[in-house]
Amino acid sequence: MGHNLLKGKRGIIFGALDELSIAWKTAERAHEEGATFVLTNAPIAMRMGKINELAAKTGSEIIPADATDEADLEALVSKSMEILGGKIDFVLHSIGMSVNVRKGREYTDQKYDWTAKGWDVSALSFHKVMQTLYKADAMSEWGSILALTYMAAQRTFPDYNDMADNKAYLESIARSFGYFFGTEKKVRVNTISQSPTPTTAGKGVKGFDAFINYAEKMSPLGNATASECADYSITLFSDLTRKVTMQNLFHDGGFSSTGVSQQIIDSFSE
Amino acid sequence: MGHNLLKGKRGIIFGALDELSIAWKTAERAHEEGATFVLTNAPIAMRMGKINELAAKTGSEIIPADATDEADLEALVSKSMEILGGKIDFVLHSIGMSVNVRKGREYTDQKYDWTAKGWDVSALSFHKVMQTLYKADAMSEWGSILALTYMAAQRTFPDYNDMADNKAYLESIARSFGYFFGTEKKVRVNTISQSPTPTTAGKGVKGFDAFINYAEKMSPLGNATASECADYSITLFSDLTRKVTMQNLFHDGGFSSTGVSQQIIDSFSE
Amino acid sequence: MGHNLLKGKRGIIFGALDELSIAWKTAERAHEEGATFVLTNAPIAMRMGKINELAAKTGSEIIPADATDEADLEALVSKSMEILGGKIDFVLHSIGMSVNVRKGREYTDQKYDWTAKGWDVSALSFHKVMQTLYKADAMSEWGSILALTYMAAQRTFPDYNDMADNKAYLESIARSFGYFFGTEKKVRVNTISQSPTPTTAGKGVKGFDAFINYAEKMSPLGNATASECADYSITLFSDLTRKVTMQNLFHDGGFSSTGVSQQIIDSFSE
Amino acid sequence: MGHNLLKGKRGIIFGALDELSIAWKTAERAHEEGATFVLTNAPIAMRMGKINELAAKTGSEIIPADATDEADLEALVSKSMEILGGKIDFVLHSIGMSVNVRKGREYTDQKYDWTAKGWDVSALSFHKVMQTLYKADAMSEWGSILALTYMAAQRTFPDYNDMADNKAYLESIARSFGYFFGTEKKVRVNTISQSPTPTTAGKGVKGFDAFINYAEKMSPLGNATASECADYSITLFSDLTRKVTMQNLFHDGGFSSTGVSQQIIDSFSE
Repeated sequence: MGHNLLKGKRGIIFGALDELSIAWKTAERAHEEGATFVLTNAPIAMRMGKINELAAKTGSEIIPADATDEADLEALVSKSMEILGGKIDFVLHSIGMSVNVRKGREYTDQKYDWTAKGWDVSALSFHKVMQTLYKADAMSEWGSILALTYMAAQRTFPDYNDMADNKAYLESIARSFGYFFGTEKKVRVNTISQSPTPTTAGKGVKGFDAFINYAEKMSPLGNATASECADYSITLFSDLTRKVTMQNLFHDGGFSSTGVSQQIIDSFSE
Repeated sequence: MGHNLLKGKRGIIFGALDELSIAWKTAERAHEEGATFVLTNAPIAMRMGKINELAAKTGSEIIPADATDEADLEALVSKSMEILGGKIDFVLHSIGMSVNVRKGREYTDQKYDWTAKGWDVSALSFHKVMQTLYKADAMSEWGSILALTYMAAQRTFPDYNDMADNKAYLESIARSFGYFFGTEKKVRVNTISQSPTPTTAGKGVKGFDAFINYAEKMSPLGNATASECADYSITLFSDLTRKVTMQNLFHDGGFSSTGVSQQIIDSFSE
Repeated sequence: MGHNLLKGKRGIIFGALDELSIAWKTAERAHEEGATFVLTNAPIAMRMGKINELAAKTGSEIIPADATDEADLEALVSKSMEILGGKIDFVLHSIGMSVNVRKGREYTDQKYDWTAKGWDVSALSFHKVMQTLYKADAMSEWGSILALTYMAAQRTFPDYNDMADNKAYLESIARSFGYFFGTEKKVRVNTISQSPTPTTAGKGVKGFDAFINYAEKMSPLGNATASECADYSITLFSDLTRKVTMQNLFHDGGFSSTGVSQQIIDSFSE
Repeated sequence: MGHNLLKGKRGIIFGALDELSIAWKTAERAHEEGATFVLTNAPIAMRMGKINELAAKTGSEIIPADATDEADLEALVSKSMEILGGKIDFVLHSIGMSVNVRKGREYTDQKYDWTAKGWDVSALSFHKVMQTLYKADAMSEWGSILALTYMAAQRTFPDYNDMADNKAYLESIARSFGYFFGTEKKVRVNTISQSPTPTTAGKGVKGFDAFINYAEKMSPLGNATASECADYSITLFSDLTRKVTMQNLFHDGGFSSTGVSQQIIDSFSE
């Protein structure tokens, strides 16, 4: 039931872990829309995930790569072009991890080696991916690069911890690199700021269930799902959005523009 | 060369004056994508324009309506549903006019009757359109309402005059009404903040050519054209963006996120 | 216990109704800081209020003026300069009223004559005040003009109704007129976006108590009070903030940058 | 000519290098306003600078500290409280350095060890400073913590390089830590986003002179100077701004809210 929106387009998709992943859903939808692409993930994530199923389903090859490792990324980019038969039209960066969160360290009690590791994985990796593509001149004109982010980059959610700062850095990279990719290569770079999404990764965050319930009640259209995020990503990879660049695009059922909803305020009137 | 993105969808398109209009281009593209729709414009604008050509080309009917007149809007909405055979899936509001600009009054020397007239036409009309649709329960679930705006709502461009304030009001209406349309009707409401575009209306603004030249040099991907805006609108009317609401979406080749471009700064180094 | 921050400065303060008013508190503080000023309010508001007490306490004269009436404003400005003995250094605009709110009309059921009246009183009046000052060349160099606003201009609060759109227009005027006042007269124009404040006007809004309770729990430092807002205004009138202009300044205990507080989220975990 | 705005307050000021530094000017002004404080800088910066003059002038002690080193910061905080005789009321973080900029590496050609070093010095150091203060419970209630930033965090300036991303991270830290400092300690945390300023550090950036000229022409009130920034900082350390927190405050003569100035557009009409 695709629309051939990505017919003939070649992509690289980072971060498909399992069928709850936004990257997984995006790969499925990109396939439906006629794209071919390479799947990639960190070697360790691949061992835990079921990426082979996705590869089989979408006719894709898998290239393991540590997105913080420049040599891995160079190999990924050159192999991807070889496999796909040309330059890359779209890239999805869906990578994020905070060691402080995993180990239960509060935001006010960071272990800075862990902070640096999380920053490298969650934020700087996006720069590394783009720098590798840029230096290899691997992106097609009017190509589209996209990363996933969260509104904690603008407003504080206490449990989101150092991921908030990582996302702010990531969104800044999208603007900064988007300038150069736009000017020099006619490539656009954006981020989608997605509703809290019950992925395998997301579910690890403390208080996640209460929070997703809250977000649902605050969002006039309800939380955006992983599948809906995949749909939105397709529009941003398609040729219909060529002049959208350096933007952070909220995909959240209206949460970001809601001061308070009636449902929430009612619970304080009782 | 459409993708059937709007197959079976019914719409109302305000503001197609001539083939330079964004609304005109959007109508053409919506037709290609399988939509049926009604065209509407103010009676006076219709006399000047060539909307009959567009109607013929897209198989659409034309219903004249003054978008500031509630009775006209009620008639428009009920006739549109009758003609199209059901509730409305998408609406484009592309209406704007400042009497102060037309008559050459500076921002600091407003004639307030004219300010009120421009506000009614350019901003409040968007509320009137939505209130009419809302009261008539005329929007389909997961319908999409869109208005065009300009970045002067966020930052001052001296020649944009009172249209800046009108656009700020318009964008606020999108958020405010988007809350209720989302909560009650599952309808989304957004604005596209478009590059300066050489439409017949836009060209009337003082210093427009110099400004469009400046914007071109400030935008990493160059200014977005009317055709590109039409493409972008299609994505926002399609089912692929259902959870995007209450947003102001910059479609401007990156202008809004560029502090200064190398091209501009170079002209100050000489 | 003032700091002489406004010593020798002359001002005009709009909107002091009673001792709960932010404008009232600002007048008291401006007096403590060594300023002289004129108090003004709409004739009808003055009958209801106790502005004479404030005038006596601060040694100020009162000039009734309808802030939507250009002739009244011209008289106000010229008389103020006469009384105060020179050009004006600071102006506070603290005016707002929605007929739709007063009469209980929902946002989706506006009576547009009332919408226009509220827009004129709450938003356009700020332009009228500044245009009058500008044309009369009544502001001193490095003067400061300030209006009060609310975050509903950025995010929807269902009960705030058409005041949200009015505040968006008001904030846009601050930027637009701030450009011209800055360039031509070296005068700055800003808005303070204040916490919900239990003024006599604010208390009329439906669900206000529940909302203020919610805002208190969402704000890391708690809601900002009217007195604290007065303090903040003093800094913006003083010579210590000469290069702050065209800004909307949140004075809200952190509400605007808080996605959710632990207190709020806890109530959804129970 | 102070106003006793900081009478009895104790502070720590990071980053005073020489009399062009914003931190230097702020120290001078804080002294005039009745504060006592400790000056600190990196040992290497202190050898190059003239901080002893400033210390003598303001009756301050100097404690060298590497702001990326937790042990140094712990010593700094405990010694400061000892010297000043109590908890800390205000902190200024004015630290920034990009190795990539210094070594002439383009944004699209980062050496990532250098990126990490710049991030640690320019951004993470702000977290380290606050975490040290927080754990030591060293801040007074209603204390104020401030860092300096630049608008490149929101919009791209091609020569600002990876400092843009560092500033985005820094501003995010202000919000994130501001939440916890507000909730737990009643301390506010903000950033000032300052005009480009011809400090000894700033002047090292490529194309800085052309840029500062451009910014001057784009700012309705002209660029804000280091002295004016010092004045503004004083207001944010004073008790008059207690409920301002988690904000990024533009101090830039209106640059941030100006789409284009007449002066700039005129140069494109010729």
